[in-house]
Parts: sequence; structure tokens; C-alpha cells
Amino acid sequence: MKIYGDEQSGNCYKVKLMCALLNIQHEWIHVDILAGGTNAQAFLAKNPNGKIPLLALDDGRHLWESNAIINYLAMGSDFLPSDAFDLAKVQQWQFFEQYSHEPYIAVARFIAKYLGLPDSKKAEYEAKQAGGHKALAVMETQLVRSAFLTGEHMSSADVSLYGYTHVAHEGGFDLSLYPAVQAWLARIEALPKYIPMGQ
Amino acid sequence: MKIYGDEQSGNCYKVKLMCALLNIQHEWIHVDILAGGTNAQAFLAKNPNGKIPLLALDDGRHLWESNAIINYLAMGSDFLPSDAFDLAKVQQWQFFEQYSHEPYIAVARFIAKYLGLPDSKKAEYEAKQAGGHKALAVMETQLVRSAFLTGEHMSSADVSLYGYTHVAHEGGFDLSLYPAVQAWLARIEALPKYIPMGQ
Repeated sequence: MKIYGDEQSGNCYKVKLMCALLNIQHEWIHVDILAGGTNAQAFLAKNPNGKIPLLALDDGRHLWESNAIINYLAMGSDFLPSDAFDLAKVQQWQFFEQYSHEPYIAVARFIAKYLGLPDSKKAEYEAKQAGGHKALAVMETQLVRSAFLTGEHMSSADVSLYGYTHVAHEGGFDLSLYPAVQAWLARIEALPKYIPMGQ
Repeated sequence: MKIYGDEQSGNCYKVKLMCALLNIQHEWIHVDILAGGTNAQAFLAKNPNGKIPLLALDDGRHLWESNAIINYLAMGSDFLPSDAFDLAKVQQWQFFEQYSHEPYIAVARFIAKYLGLPDSKKAEYEAKQAGGHKALAVMETQLVRSAFLTGEHMSSADVSLYGYTHVAHEGGFDLSLYPAVQAWLARIEALPKYIPMGQ
């Protein structure tokens, strides 16, 4: 299988991390978003929404959306529970990630880290802070109760949320305000097969 | 089971429609967002993210995020495929819905329908149009190829996308530009157990 992505993107790193945790062999194809790589016709034929990451199976089928990809990769593994409610809880946290976490934390990080926090983007950057802190507080509420987001076992939802949470400080978020989140990050980073972002 | 929601919200209507299609008995509890219903302590104890819809099981467990809820309700039914890749495709379209569709189409609709398109919101409303049309074009690309988003069988992904697409005109989107989307809407509305929004 081939994975199209950029290793500095949290959404792409999630997929890379899931592959590492599950020993999934793959070919990584770097796509440069800023150079228009996702708007090229050949790419749009694979994902009409023009976003990475993108999974290309050897039989020619394509799958997009980071969380759908990692759940597909995780099927049949310990990272996806078999109980129907527990499985729904995994998805709950992943939809939370895409709607209530990523649009604040990842966007603030992008403005600060990649755009250099220009004056023209300061208002947008500031506007992202409240939503990001709210998302981190929601995670903290759960992580004081359980070792991982869906209980005592790590799931693909933890991989999803780890992606941008562990670099939230690059978007101006002080994680020392969230000790249970910090302990959870350390728990994931202690996994034998863990790989850091950008490797 | 109890479902907390507002029937005028597309995210809540998805859950209502899924219950209708599957004959799932439930108690509907109206929550008034504009009156602060999702910020009440009793509600936040159920969903710390303070959003509807919310599913409360009789055993005291709670599930939030509309698409996680409808997938939970659909488990074991014809609305969720058993094939691993097809199941991932359902999730792909649902994550697309939450990230690339709802933040444009639902927000433009909210500004126009509920806020009355005030001058102070005109710029935001206009800024939502391009993203909304892009999302509709991505759907059109798929729906010229297959009767439903994931193939020839309707899935929970179609319920997810139907929620706000069928009221996109209330956000200023001319659906006559997307004939395959319109035919798909009609296909869903022709289902014997279909119920319209707000009933």
C-alpha cells in the first residue's frame, strides 16, 4: 500500500504512527501542500476533496480522511474494541477531534509554526485559543478517570488525539495546565513501537 | 434510551432520521441551545463538550457526536456494511461531513435562518460559500458514479450527509447546480420510513 502525506502534518502523522504501532509496511509518498500537491489533477482523481493523508491500496482503491484510514488499518487489532458501545466511543472521540480540537489547535499551530505568526493572522490565532483550551479541558475530564480516552486500553482514538495534542505547545497551548493529558502523552510515548513525528 | 437534541439542528435530525429508518423507540428531550441548555451543569456531566445530540442509554452510559451515535444505532443493520473497506468508506464520508461540509453549509444556514443574516455576519456568511460549494462538488463527483455515497446501498454515511445537504438552500446554496446530489436527496426522501426534519 501507498500513503500520500506530509510527515509534519498531525493528520498524516497519525497514519504513520498507526502503521508503526501495527508493523504495517507501506510506501510513503511525500506531498507538498504549500506547493499545490493536493490540487494537482492526478491527486484530485484519488481524493476529490484534495487533502492528505490518502491511502492507496494495491488494487487501486483509495481511502481518505485520517481517522477513517487509521480505523481501517486498525481493524482486527487491539486498537479497535469489539464491543459495539466501546467502538462507538472510539468514533465519538475521533469526531470530537476533527470538529472541536483540530480546527483550533492544529490551525493555531499552523499559523505560529508555518506562517510565523504574522500580524495579519494574529486575530485568527488569538481566536483559536479558547476553543483549543476547551478541547484540552474536555480531554482532561476524561483522562483523570481513565488511562486512555475510551478506558484502560489504548485505541485508535488515542492515536487520533495524540497527533495534534502532543504539539499543541507549538500553537501556544500550555499543556502543564492539563496534567492528566500530559501523563497520557507520556504513556503513548513509552510504547515500544512509538515513533516521533517527522521521522 | 433518551436522545437530547433540537429537531431543527441537522446534527440532531440525523439521529432522529436514523431512529425512524430503524424503528428505534426512544424518548426525545428537547434542549434549547440558544437558552444555554448545553451549558447547564447537568448537561455537561453527560457531555463535557456541551453539544447536542447526546444519547443516554438506560444503563446510565452516554454517547455524543452525531455520527458516532448513528453508527452505534446502525450496528448490525443494513446501514453499516460488513466489509472492512466499505465500513472505512462510511467513516471517510462522515469525517468529510464534519470537517469539510458542516462547518460551511450548516454555519451559513445558521447565519441566514436563525440570525437573519445581519450585516455583522455578512462577511462570515460570504466566506462560507466557497467551502460549501466545494463540499457539494465532491459529493456530486461521487454521486454521478453511484446511487449512494459508498456504493449502491444506502449507509449511515448517507444519513450523515443528508442532514445538512437537504437544507443547504437555506444557507444560500443552489442545489440545482448538483443534479446527482438532487437525485440522491430524492432517493432518500422516497424511503417508506423517511421522516422530514422538525417532526
